[in-house]
Amino acid sequence: MRILHTADWHLGRIFHGVHLTADQAFVLDRLVRLASESKPDVVLVSGDVYDRAVPPPDAVALLDDTLSRLVLGLRIPVILIAGNHDSPERLSFGSKVLAAQCLHLAGTPAPDATPVVIDDRHGPVSFCSLPYAEPALVRERLDRKDVVDHDSAMAAQIESARRRLPAGSRAVLVAHAFVAGGIESESERSLSVGGAAAVGVEHFEGFHYAALGHLHRPQRAGADHVQYAGSLLCYSFAEAGQTKSVNLVELDAAGRCAVERIPLAPSHEVRCIRGAFRELLAGPRAAESREDYIMAVLTDKEPILDAHGRLSEIYPNLLHIERSHLAAAGETGGAARDHRRLSDLELFRAFFSQVTGDELTPEQAEAYAEIVENLRRAEREAD
Amino acid sequence: MRILHTADWHLGRIFHGVHLTADQAFVLDRLVRLASESKPDVVLVSGDVYDRAVPPPDAVALLDDTLSRLVLGLRIPVILIAGNHDSPERLSFGSKVLAAQCLHLAGTPAPDATPVVIDDRHGPVSFCSLPYAEPALVRERLDRKDVVDHDSAMAAQIESARRRLPAGSRAVLVAHAFVAGGIESESERSLSVGGAAAVGVEHFEGFHYAALGHLHRPQRAGADHVQYAGSLLCYSFAEAGQTKSVNLVELDAAGRCAVERIPLAPSHEVRCIRGAFRELLAGPRAAESREDYIMAVLTDKEPILDAHGRLSEIYPNLLHIERSHLAAAGETGGAARDHRRLSDLELFRAFFSQVTGDELTPEQAEAYAEIVENLRRAEREAD
Repeated sequence: MRILHTADWHLGRIFHGVHLTADQAFVLDRLVRLASESKPDVVLVSGDVYDRAVPPPDAVALLDDTLSRLVLGLRIPVILIAGNHDSPERLSFGSKVLAAQCLHLAGTPAPDATPVVIDDRHGPVSFCSLPYAEPALVRERLDRKDVVDHDSAMAAQIESARRRLPAGSRAVLVAHAFVAGGIESESERSLSVGGAAAVGVEHFEGFHYAALGHLHRPQRAGADHVQYAGSLLCYSFAEAGQTKSVNLVELDAAGRCAVERIPLAPSHEVRCIRGAFRELLAGPRAAESREDYIMAVLTDKEPILDAHGRLSEIYPNLLHIERSHLAAAGETGGAARDHRRLSDLELFRAFFSQVTGDELTPEQAEAYAEIVENLRRAEREAD
Repeated sequence: MRILHTADWHLGRIFHGVHLTADQAFVLDRLVRLASESKPDVVLVSGDVYDRAVPPPDAVALLDDTLSRLVLGLRIPVILIAGNHDSPERLSFGSKVLAAQCLHLAGTPAPDATPVVIDDRHGPVSFCSLPYAEPALVRERLDRKDVVDHDSAMAAQIESARRRLPAGSRAVLVAHAFVAGGIESESERSLSVGGAAAVGVEHFEGFHYAALGHLHRPQRAGADHVQYAGSLLCYSFAEAGQTKSVNLVELDAAGRCAVERIPLAPSHEVRCIRGAFRELLAGPRAAESREDYIMAVLTDKEPILDAHGRLSEIYPNLLHIERSHLAAAGETGGAARDHRRLSDLELFRAFFSQVTGDELTPEQAEAYAEIVENLRRAEREAD
């Protein structure tokens, strides 16, 4: 059994003001080609297919197009679950009719759902879908009062799923969760305020492969057969340099799995560049593309006029600029003070020291006062 | 060409506190049986399939079940558009894969959508879907600055749809709109605040049948070939006594249509009963069911202790009681006064006269004062 495992597409994501749909379409096209070449028996999408409950129309069209290429074009069954970013009801729409085309959707926990069974030459493999659900919903749907957090919710759902597994069948779990010990990126939305989101890896024992979604860095999660596919693209600058990938999983007759990560090259890399403004103006090094999505960290202490405009001429997709000394001092230093109670000069003094890292000298203060006075006079005369 | 035209299912509707999903499932089962017997070439659902953008899970399951019985079980193509109650994005999900099963969904206006073409022995019939859309959305999607209201939006959409019609093909329009002159019920949600919602019937010229949704009373709309199917059930007591139905339409070789209304008998009729409380306690007349959804209008002027509880023993689905003399006087008479500034006695006097239609006599006022004083004394002693 060959399984293509992907997750966290986040279609419709906006990254520092850029709609990523074209980038996502580029990578999904590669994913469909990969599916066409590697001919998996099934594609698993472990949640967060959309970035938000009401995605933009082009994201809806992209998903529709990708899924139809897989199930109609290539005739590869797809199992897709909702993540914490998705609207469960949206993903449940038309699911019976879609299942007739081998597109199996799970939006909300369904205690009585039977697993999807796909055969290979060694016999059947059962796929259990556990869409993301708040513990309170699991408690209600499964009528289990002992469900108090994500860990007990996962335990209850897996227990319920296990009861529906045909005896002797190899079993794969598709879930969207935060497994304890996993490495987070900046771009996930926390499942629980206060940090009670983690589930123990021991729940996944007995399954031959657990195809997880939620964490955006591809990673093994506590056991070789428990794996995050990672996100489709880098969705934060903290992920710059991470290679995003999908998992190509071979499940043998005994249910042992071998996982290969197939990199997904994006149309734009996400990259951080750092240095003095003049250095950065020299442009990218040989192997780097000007078209990458760029965050620039400027080490200069002096103010720079129109840094964004000038650097954008070199890097058209410059999305964010940080000043290293500001970041060190804390950009919001002094924000706790009530600005409305400060005089013009005090405000400027605070601004100057925040931007330059230096204190205003008496000469500078005098120059400032003179400029402001001239402006005020001009304003009075204009009235 | 035989067409089964239905609309305004409003799955997930709550009627005076009663979830109607079971009633809707009952009628939809009849509709599927009717489709099984009458063997239409296509089923049209003209919008408002759900009652709200986020329908309850049992409503989602009911729609999924009904559609899969039609397209998978009976192999009858279904064309379904969004109405003003639906979430357009939800209805667009998976539409390519669903179309492969002959379930054609239209959630949002798509200027470049090609009509669904279904053949009979006389040749092709083209079905144009015009899902409900706010004029502003139509203006943007069709890039038509002249779209300022529902009428010009409909004109622009139809003009755009017409251009995509194959020459010589018979043509059917599926739309969700308020055609000028149509008879409204209480249960529709107005399409436009201020009443600029009406569209002219002249736009539908050239189509051989216009299958409309929005108005809940089945009706012809200005021309024989422009028809509302009406809602699945009575969704207000103002509709009590209305026979709900679906349209069975025969389209001949020349595109002339004959419309037959097939009644849909519900599991509970919606009925108003009127009379003195004692009369109503006598129970339903021979042909009437105790199980109907009942609104009782009591003509009594006297206060009646636990009218709802006692009448519910006769009519278990009593949903609403009105007092005829209160309705006449206006239930909210005196509500404009600030109750907090009235004394206990003044408040009671207003309440008494509102409930009974009479003024409080001096003896009654004295009795009231004595009761209140006794209660206050008991309260003080308890402290």
